[in-house]
This record gives sequence, C-alpha cells and structure tokens, in this order.
Amino acid sequence: MNHATGTEPFDMSLVQCGARLRRSPFYEAEQRYGPKGYTVYNHMLFPIRYDDLEEEYWHLLHHVTLWDVSVERQVEITGPDGFRFTQLLTCRDLSRCAVGQGKYVLVTAPDGGIVNDPVLLRLGENHFWLALADSDVLLYATGLAAHAGMDVTIREPDVSPVQIQGPKSKDVVAALFGPDILDLRYYWFRETDLDGIPVVVTRTGWTSEVGYEIYLRDGSRGTELWERIMEAGRPHDIRPTGPSDIRRIEGGIFNHGIDMTILNNPFEMGLDRLVDLDGDADFMGKQALRRIKAQGVRRRIVGIEIAGDPIGFNTERWPVGSDGVVVGHVSSAIHSPRLRRNIAYAWVPAERSAIGTSLWVDTPSGRADATVVPIPFVDPAKEIPKS
Amino acid sequence: MNHATGTEPFDMSLVQCGARLRRSPFYEAEQRYGPKGYTVYNHMLFPIRYDDLEEEYWHLLHHVTLWDVSVERQVEITGPDGFRFTQLLTCRDLSRCAVGQGKYVLVTAPDGGIVNDPVLLRLGENHFWLALADSDVLLYATGLAAHAGMDVTIREPDVSPVQIQGPKSKDVVAALFGPDILDLRYYWFRETDLDGIPVVVTRTGWTSEVGYEIYLRDGSRGTELWERIMEAGRPHDIRPTGPSDIRRIEGGIFNHGIDMTILNNPFEMGLDRLVDLDGDADFMGKQALRRIKAQGVRRRIVGIEIAGDPIGFNTERWPVGSDGVVVGHVSSAIHSPRLRRNIAYAWVPAERSAIGTSLWVDTPSGRADATVVPIPFVDPAKEIPKS
Repeated sequence: MNHATGTEPFDMSLVQCGARLRRSPFYEAEQRYGPKGYTVYNHMLFPIRYDDLEEEYWHLLHHVTLWDVSVERQVEITGPDGFRFTQLLTCRDLSRCAVGQGKYVLVTAPDGGIVNDPVLLRLGENHFWLALADSDVLLYATGLAAHAGMDVTIREPDVSPVQIQGPKSKDVVAALFGPDILDLRYYWFRETDLDGIPVVVTRTGWTSEVGYEIYLRDGSRGTELWERIMEAGRPHDIRPTGPSDIRRIEGGIFNHGIDMTILNNPFEMGLDRLVDLDGDADFMGKQALRRIKAQGVRRRIVGIEIAGDPIGFNTERWPVGSDGVVVGHVSSAIHSPRLRRNIAYAWVPAERSAIGTSLWVDTPSGRADATVVPIPFVDPAKEIPKS
Repeated sequence: MNHATGTEPFDMSLVQCGARLRRSPFYEAEQRYGPKGYTVYNHMLFPIRYDDLEEEYWHLLHHVTLWDVSVERQVEITGPDGFRFTQLLTCRDLSRCAVGQGKYVLVTAPDGGIVNDPVLLRLGENHFWLALADSDVLLYATGLAAHAGMDVTIREPDVSPVQIQGPKSKDVVAALFGPDILDLRYYWFRETDLDGIPVVVTRTGWTSEVGYEIYLRDGSRGTELWERIMEAGRPHDIRPTGPSDIRRIEGGIFNHGIDMTILNNPFEMGLDRLVDLDGDADFMGKQALRRIKAQGVRRRIVGIEIAGDPIGFNTERWPVGSDGVVVGHVSSAIHSPRLRRNIAYAWVPAERSAIGTSLWVDTPSGRADATVVPIPFVDPAKEIPKS
C-alpha cells in the first residue's frame, strides 16, 4: 500500500460502462487524455483521475487544471413564480442574490434534512439554475411543484460545467474571454460565448484555489470547448484532472453523499450561515429547523487530525471513539502532503465536538489518536507553503 | 472482441469504490465469491457479474442463481393516508392490489413521464414498499407529500432484497422455508423469518424464469442470510451472478434509465395495461396521460432483430434508420445464444413501429439490417429449447 501516492489504498474494481450510464458532452475529448478511473454521479460516468492523485493535487496548487463536472446536472426553474419556488427549495435567503450572482445553497427537506448542496445561479428575476451534487433534485422539485400552487417550469437544461482551477486559471480564462473576465467577483457570473459556443463563466469551484467554471450551454459542442480550453491552457501547463479530495478537505469543503446526507441538517454541519430563519423567506423545513436550532443538535461534523503515519483515503466509514466507546465515524479522511498531517471529517456527539477534544479512530492499519481541530484545515488567511 | 462470451465488447474501466458509494448488506459475503465487475445504482455499488455473462445466462436457464438486488432501495409509505398517497404515485389501480400482494407499477410525473418502475408490495391497508429502479423516488415522494395534504410517513426502511432465480429456485426456497412456500402465487408474498432473520419472500424476479426474492429486513444480518441461501442451494449448484441482460431482453423486460426514462410515457412503452384512466384512482399525470392517449403517441419502443454476426452488448445508443434517414436509436442490444439471433429494443417513430417494418442499425461493426418483431422475444407460451 503506497500511502504517499494515495492511489493504492483504494479498492479498485471493474465498472461496466453500459449504455444506462450517461456520458458527458466532454467524454469523447477526455478519452484522448486517458482517464484512469471513473465513478458514477447523477447517473453519469465521472472521470476521477488522469494521473496519480498527489500529482494532480500539486498541479492544482502550482498550475492550472481542467475538470469535467458536467455530472453536476442542472435543474432549471423558470416561470412567473420562479423566485418564490426556488426560495421554497432552499433555506438561504435568495432576496440577497442579485441577477448575475450565484450562491452556495442547501436544498432542504420538510424535516430540515439536506437534500443537496448545489451552487445556485440567478440568471433572471425568475430564472435559476442549480448545479447539483449526486441526488435527483429534479424529482424532488417536480414533486414539490405538483401541489405548491405556483406557476413554474422545472427541467434539466442542456448545460454542462467544467472547472478551471489553480493559480494560473486567471491566465487561461483571460486568454479565452479577454482580460475583462478577471473583473468577475467571487460567486458572480457572466453569460457570454466563445466564438459562438454559448457559455456562462462563473468565479466558483470545488478546490479553495482561485478558479472558474465554464457552463457549456450546447452539449453538441463539448469536444470543441474542451480543446479550446486545453489550447488556451497549454502555455500554462494545463492538465485534465479529477476532483482533488486532498485540496477540498484541506479547504473545509464537504462532499454530499458522505460527509452529509438527507439525514443531516445544516446546524449539525456548522452551516448556520446558510440558514435564514429570521427573514420572510418561505422554504421547506423552516419550522423543523427553528425547532432544531432551539433544541440544539446532538451530533456535529468536525475536523480532526489523526496521529501516526500517512493514511490512505478511507473507502468506508471508520469508527471514531472516546475512551472505550465508539461515538461516531470518520466520513472523509486523507493525508495532506503539505500539512504533513492526516486530516479528516468526523461525526461526533455534540459534547465531544469542542476544539482540542481527544478521540481515537480505527483505521485499516489500527487504532490511532485523533484530536478535534478547526476547519478549514488550511486557513486562507494564513499562507501555507505550497510545497 | 469475443462476441460469444459477451464479456469483451464492454468498455471496462476502473471505478473508485469510495466511501460515498454505499455498500450492500451482502457486500462482505459477496467478496468471498469474487465479483468481477461493478456498476453504481441508487448511489450503491452493484456487483454485475462473477463469471462470463453467457455462463451466468446458461446457469440461470438450467439451475439457480443468487443475485444481490439490495440496490433496489425501498421507499416505505405508512400512515392513515398511505393508500391514497401511494395511489397518487402510480397510474396502476391499487384498489386491485390486496394486502399480501405485489404489483409491477409505473411511478408517473405530472406530465405522464415515467419516474421509476418499481415492484410494489402491499404490506397493510396503508403500508407499502416500492422496490426501486435507479432514481430517487424518496425525494419525489417527499416533495409530493409536502403540499398534498395527506397524513403519511415516507422513509427508506432497512430492507434489502436478493433474487433467487432459475428452475431450481423452487428447491432452494422450499429447503429454506418449507414446502408451503411453493404455494405463493406470482407476485404475492409472505412475511416470515429464517431462524429469526426477518424476511419477506415474494414470487417475483427480473429474469422471466421461475424465481423468488427474499427481502432482508435487518441489514446487520446480510452475511448470515447470504450464506444460508448459498448453503441451501449447494445441492442445486447455486451460483452468485449479476443481472442477466440476455434473459431479461429475451423476456421483454425493460431497464429504466436506458430503455425508458422520465422523458417517456407508458403508452410509448406499450405498457397500457399498467395505466388506469377509467377508474376513480387519482394519480400524478392522469390528465396528461388522457391527453396523450387521445392524441396517440409519436414514437414507440419496439423489439427488433438485427441481422448478421453475433453482436456485443451496446455500450451506447446505436442509431436506427429507415431508408437513408436516422429515425431513432437502439437502447439495449444483445446476442441471444439460444435464439441464435441479435435482439434489441429500438425507439422508432410510431409509423415505423409495425411488426415486420424494415430498418437498419449502425453497430460498431457497421450498418446491419433490422426488422421489427414482437416482444417478448422468447414467448413463455412456446417452449424454446434451453440449449
């Protein structure tokens, strides 16, 4: 098992790329660059790496990467009640989201559970896109709209994003769209085109590095867009990669489906800033979340550091204990090469969630000491050497 | 490419079995039998074969197979309005489904599209399970219930089915549960236990062979149940397998996600028998389906035979044409070893859907003639030699 590269601890096996699993508009172009692994996300094949994962991490930190996130399927909401209906889906106050602006939002269930955590873009007063994590929000929204008495149209549009991330991403988008694109503020976007290829460019990403996303609005032009980006990135050594779990965990980003599911609520996640209980916004789960907030949560997700030799990526939940008792589990664990520490998210009882609490974790190599630490693990305000 | 075995035409690649993908309660037991491939289904790892696919097909026809379908996640509906709400989800008249009986149903959207095609079990007057194909019906139902004004509880219960299929399945279930279990009629079920392991036994399956499903009601006992079944099946040469696409296509069974999606309606599928527009049943899409029925459909899925050498499983949609024009696509194609024919489902315009219509198909080996034929390809009323 090669802990250093992060490639060996995985349980790898064969996936059947049958016709049932949808292909990305970038699938054909990607095959030229040799993806080395796939997962499945929103019923689509999802390339997860082209190289050693640690190599891809360093490349993201120092250069620029191109990552196909077309699996972030979109739900589009339009119609006269588009704003009211979209607000119904999320606990974040959308009156503070201008046209041209995006927000990271939580889609909530009637009991306050987290259905999904998309990036929302507001394209018009009553026109929204949700770029989804892996759950069928299209079905949730369709069910909700059936009896909501609102005049809306809900559909999956032909929209497929890619991420351009890393310090040199600015050079790449400037080469593609001109230097004005660098005026985009964090989480804002611009509707434009690339020699006729219709796109939306956003200043967003899943890396905590500087980065952009380009949302392709015509799936038939995937190969063309991909190669245009690769060409613009060549002087900056752009490389196709998968998601960087190392960097997203360092950055305090959660992965819906493992770090949080519909069984968790925003307060357990420490995402109170995404919940607006005081305003007029009417959304699913508002009453439940008021009650949860008043009562306090029983468990929380926290950052922990795990002592000992570098660990591999967890392929299952690892038990977390305190004294002699299992009290929770690790959802995501990884070794950070630049912090030279094992970092992880753990679900623990609220009374074991304070910074500095001592815990233990049962890893595949045995029991290891662990300590609750602040997240993000890499504080953007403090410069951490990128080597 | 080895057409005869069916294993080589697949595009195989590496899947990352990360912690985000849920494991089946039978995962641990299965590892002892060496699954040779996985796909992902309802956010879970899904073993798709343990041997050559044609070997598994012959074994199903002559002996008995054990297949983990715990990926058919259940939605459970209970509460005083359980019947009315479950009826709201499906276009099939549930007043004809007795307690103790199951039905193959279509879950419909407001526009008549097919959200899912589960097997429904009625466990009580107001108590239902839906054993799902690959889409988040839990979210659809949760959204629908939010404003439906009905008193129901919707959740995913701890229930995980396996299929025991093939002519000797009767011997295996009789050995497990006693000979009385053979009184079960097609699509009926019995709640029972196996030395304390709580289960539901149904006379159902996805093979068109004689078969049963055992729904495990306690996920902590997956290994125990699996090994009990393997032990009871040993005298009959039971083997773990994946789904048999050959047998299900022969049998006229559709695969949701590829043969039909939410963009298709029951009339396009020829599944009129599952739609009750005349009765009092109130369900999603009733108005839309009335309109569609009155207008007639523009396209249909049909069975076709493709001429020429044995084809491999299609890993993508193949274009279907008539004269010089592409008019549709093949959704599922395979070579039937006992029919010694290439059989497939194709989407075609209604005016090209009559039995005997000549078409062509662009397969990876070139253009081939094709003809519309009746489905199922293997008529249960006519004995086809199983060799």
